Amino acid sequence: MENFEFYAPTKVVFGRGTESKTGSLVCEFAGKGSKILLHYGMGSVERSGLLDRVRSSLKESGIEFVELGGVRPNPRLSMARKGIEICRENGINFILAVGGGSAIDSAKCIGYGLANSGVDVWDFYCRKARPKACAGVGVVLTIAAAGSEMSESSVITNDENGNLKRGCSSDYSRPKFAVMNPELTATLPPYQTASGCVDIIMHTLERFFCVPHTSKINDELSAALIRVVMENAKILQRDPKNYDARAEIMWAGSLSHNGFTGDRFIGDWACHQLEHELSGMFDVPHGAGLSAIWGTWARYVLNADAARFAKLARMVFGISGKSVVDAALDGICRMENFFSDIGMPTGVSGLNIKPSQPQIQELARKCSFDGTRTIGAIKKLDEEDIRNIYTLASERD
Amino acid sequence: MENFEFYAPTKVVFGRGTESKTGSLVCEFAGKGSKILLHYGMGSVERSGLLDRVRSSLKESGIEFVELGGVRPNPRLSMARKGIEICRENGINFILAVGGGSAIDSAKCIGYGLANSGVDVWDFYCRKARPKACAGVGVVLTIAAAGSEMSESSVITNDENGNLKRGCSSDYSRPKFAVMNPELTATLPPYQTASGCVDIIMHTLERFFCVPHTSKINDELSAALIRVVMENAKILQRDPKNYDARAEIMWAGSLSHNGFTGDRFIGDWACHQLEHELSGMFDVPHGAGLSAIWGTWARYVLNADAARFAKLARMVFGISGKSVVDAALDGICRMENFFSDIGMPTGVSGLNIKPSQPQIQELARKCSFDGTRTIGAIKKLDEEDIRNIYTLASERD
Repeated sequence: MENFEFYAPTKVVFGRGTESKTGSLVCEFAGKGSKILLHYGMGSVERSGLLDRVRSSLKESGIEFVELGGVRPNPRLSMARKGIEICRENGINFILAVGGGSAIDSAKCIGYGLANSGVDVWDFYCRKARPKACAGVGVVLTIAAAGSEMSESSVITNDENGNLKRGCSSDYSRPKFAVMNPELTATLPPYQTASGCVDIIMHTLERFFCVPHTSKINDELSAALIRVVMENAKILQRDPKNYDARAEIMWAGSLSHNGFTGDRFIGDWACHQLEHELSGMFDVPHGAGLSAIWGTWARYVLNADAARFAKLARMVFGISGKSVVDAALDGICRMENFFSDIGMPTGVSGLNIKPSQPQIQELARKCSFDGTRTIGAIKKLDEEDIRNIYTLASERD
Repeated sequence: MENFEFYAPTKVVFGRGTESKTGSLVCEFAGKGSKILLHYGMGSVERSGLLDRVRSSLKESGIEFVELGGVRPNPRLSMARKGIEICRENGINFILAVGGGSAIDSAKCIGYGLANSGVDVWDFYCRKARPKACAGVGVVLTIAAAGSEMSESSVITNDENGNLKRGCSSDYSRPKFAVMNPELTATLPPYQTASGCVDIIMHTLERFFCVPHTSKINDELSAALIRVVMENAKILQRDPKNYDARAEIMWAGSLSHNGFTGDRFIGDWACHQLEHELSGMFDVPHGAGLSAIWGTWARYVLNADAARFAKLARMVFGISGKSVVDAALDGICRMENFFSDIGMPTGVSGLNIKPSQPQIQELARKCSFDGTRTIGAIKKLDEEDIRNIYTLASERD
């Protein structure tokens, strides 16, 4: 087993009605009488009444707050800059994100900006600088997908300069607490629910395809998480309000990205990087974008570690009695069939976009940092490989 | 799924040679230039050279320390009181435990004593008072077993008054960091290694037998952890120095008791309470004591939730195609066979002790808090049930 670090200090308060505890959690982690930024997305958290319940909880606990709503999917740098400015003007040093990965990632970016004065916050995302701290972030989660509620990562799109989408990872940004009420996800549209399930599974898969291989315990836990998400994603297809299925998926979402199944640094992550460019350019939902790429990526890199794909096939789908390559290919098909079953695309056309050749060139150029870097672990992919994968994936739906 | 809280803030630094990071971790969590208590057990940490490596790491990081060694298995209240006194005299507010569950639990008890002045620390263990804080505890782990390196629990034996063995659980006591180098466990005697493996499995089993049942995700993760520990415990029977097997077990030990497989409050824990009285009176190794009781307990309570035992049989041993009760009984036998395979007892005689009838009466009286409380969740066991289980277990080896 390789050496690793594990640090997931987020306090999780999980279950029905738990948003009523938000105020006391802010007191616990930001201090009594604190003033915070209440940060959220578009209309749904307001319309559902959740925001009012959170406001009430904050007021009951004597927490002052300034509001900044309007975070969009694929959260923008300009919004985070606005948050940093508001916090500085108001002497605020704690951000409460109410929403999914977008609101949380935007809150983390604001946190970095506040805690590292003198450095442009984008420098942390384009890897020119490393953050040395992050202001406290708390979460009321409304979407099971990104895992950002316990993770050390955040992804921001630079709308000031070419819509580059970049991630920054550091333990400083792990949320102090996360309120997770699965009821809050019950009204999500089926497409968004399914997209979230793909994202969750992909966080486990990216770590499963690692170099070097990690441990039996990680493999067993990864397979368990994937099986649970698949089973419950199918339940939600038939019965979208099923509380237990929502709950299983929500908790699996956190465990899939908090480090529990392995150290992110040795994982593959090529699919995530391929998808980031795609949604940076076309603004597609992250999970759907991953689903559109995964099968093509898998077949492209298969020979680099067919045994690993065969192991996935065995542990998740019970496939045995075949050659390594046949088992591996069967497992990839079964995973794609699952994606299709829950209404997710298995090719870029299925996203209702059709990248032109020049666009594919641009995607590959950005994804390879102008041809200066490779992506992936089990097979290192250069600019040409990346272009090939985008091209192959664009021919499928 | 039931509502739950999850909070496991311990920073884990896992792998070969990681004890060299102890000093910098103390700086991170206790502050640079801190003065701490270095707390450890009997001779083995000194003889192995570990203690010298830890001392060097502390000195390199500019950490001052006062030493208190000599913690015994089933750690004593009198030792913790001594630690509290030394810390108070020296203005110390952080305890570094080097050892297994005994050193860590003793450190937690010292931490409670330091942070809750005006209350006798034993009151937290006999449930007369609840702690409101705990001084910081760091860990360099040398035995994979108790899971105390990430857990909120500690168990202390009151050697001032009848050797009552009692536990105290609160999130305040979760260690700030845990250095886990599996190499440090390579020289443990086989019996102690096996006893640790039973303890780890039992931490998962106690949560698996819960009321109400929790979730598919908990069941899947629990079964995965148990399978991994069983497989690797058998590898260590043949090859005690196998690093990977040591590592799988060590990490499983933390995950089995840090809350990942479910909230401890709805778990059964009858076996742990039965064992605590046994080792309080006879000073037997905790894991071996659990192994000596589990099968008897399982058959005694079987009818209260046979389906749950059958589920365990299916998920861990792949037993199917039988009636619920037959599958359940088969699973219990298979688990006992595993205990035997690794040299652990399946009855009290196997501990080389033979409690007399008056001793069994006393064990049952203590375990039921003088007949005022029941233990267990899937079946509530009163003083008579407890006496029956001790009697039945005493007839087996």
